Amino acid sequence: MSVPALIPFKPRNPKTRLSCVLELPEREKFAQMMMCDVVVAAREAGCEPFLLGTEPFSFNGLPVIVDPGGLNESINTYLEKNSGSLLIIMADVALASGPAIRRLITTKADMAIVPGTGGGTNAIYLSSADRFRVSYYGMSFEKHLRIAEECGLSCEVVDSFLIHTDIDEREDLVELLIHGKGMSSRYLHELGFVLSADKGRVRVVRDTSGT
Amino acid sequence: MSVPALIPFKPRNPKTRLSCVLELPEREKFAQMMMCDVVVAAREAGCEPFLLGTEPFSFNGLPVIVDPGGLNESINTYLEKNSGSLLIIMADVALASGPAIRRLITTKADMAIVPGTGGGTNAIYLSSADRFRVSYYGMSFEKHLRIAEECGLSCEVVDSFLIHTDIDEREDLVELLIHGKGMSSRYLHELGFVLSADKGRVRVVRDTSGT
Repeated sequence: MSVPALIPFKPRNPKTRLSCVLELPEREKFAQMMMCDVVVAAREAGCEPFLLGTEPFSFNGLPVIVDPGGLNESINTYLEKNSGSLLIIMADVALASGPAIRRLITTKADMAIVPGTGGGTNAIYLSSADRFRVSYYGMSFEKHLRIAEECGLSCEVVDSFLIHTDIDEREDLVELLIHGKGMSSRYLHELGFVLSADKGRVRVVRDTSGT
Repeated sequence: MSVPALIPFKPRNPKTRLSCVLELPEREKFAQMMMCDVVVAAREAGCEPFLLGTEPFSFNGLPVIVDPGGLNESINTYLEKNSGSLLIIMADVALASGPAIRRLITTKADMAIVPGTGGGTNAIYLSSADRFRVSYYGMSFEKHLRIAEECGLSCEVVDSFLIHTDIDEREDLVELLIHGKGMSSRYLHELGFVLSADKGRVRVVRDTSGT
């Protein structure tokens, strides 16, 4: 049976920490492209993705649940009412692949989790949604491990670079340009983003001469 | 049969990009601690680690091969002479775990590879060492995929955050402090490094008042 995949999505003024390299309409389109990449990967893994947003919007016929509450409140409201399996995956893990998501949803534990950059949480799989509650923001990975323990749930930490990589800041675009095969990396290329290797780490620069 | 694990190691003046937060003796000790963490993980995976260095040194009875040549030259000299299986893993992937390394050395392909931050290469497993040659520096991940193709070797890209994370710059210490369970993260704690969450991403600060 296919696993529902909840993707929180904010269509308006998203990814503000990319304002230094992307204008508002570009950020909105880029956030949509990343969400599309996540949707494609979730479907490839055999999930049925749907969006959770604070206001009505439509995108390519994807089911949308609208809840004006905060992220934690709206997800926890959903969890309480659903006893089946559920994947919760962030809309900005644009490198996520079908096989990476399969590793989560085929866990033998009660739940599986992938941490994000800086101690966040990028994906959670729950075999019984109503037995867990989320607490995003800040160092949520540790918080979610603690909640799993409090709820008596066994939890596998899945070691995935592709799902660990969330795209929030300029330097995150490097990994997307190197490893991305989806719509969001193609869009960055169209906008003139290229890799630049100086002495230290590889960086991105935007070449606007051709756009 | 156990897989030899080649770990290139530079004991003198290592990790210069951490000079902003670590004095020279601290950098040398930190590099040793990270190498130890990699050795422990490699052994846990069933490998037999040995070091490759440009000058003689001894460390905890680990076998050491000394070759004054450059990184690529000395590894390729070793590869030419060895037809068995081999793991090549960098000394600064301090989060590497036994299970993560097992995923590489149990690949069904001729070889397996884990990219590093910014398009580098952090680990390569070869079922027959003498059929491959390395080309580190710069964006070596793409180069290694191309060499695999030229050599007619099937290659699995292993999706591991733990092996993808190399510790070169100050911001890399964040992931080590969050996820590290070995000697190197313990050493950072001893030196007074703590996580600091400001508005954006989590950063590290060093509190020297207690040291």
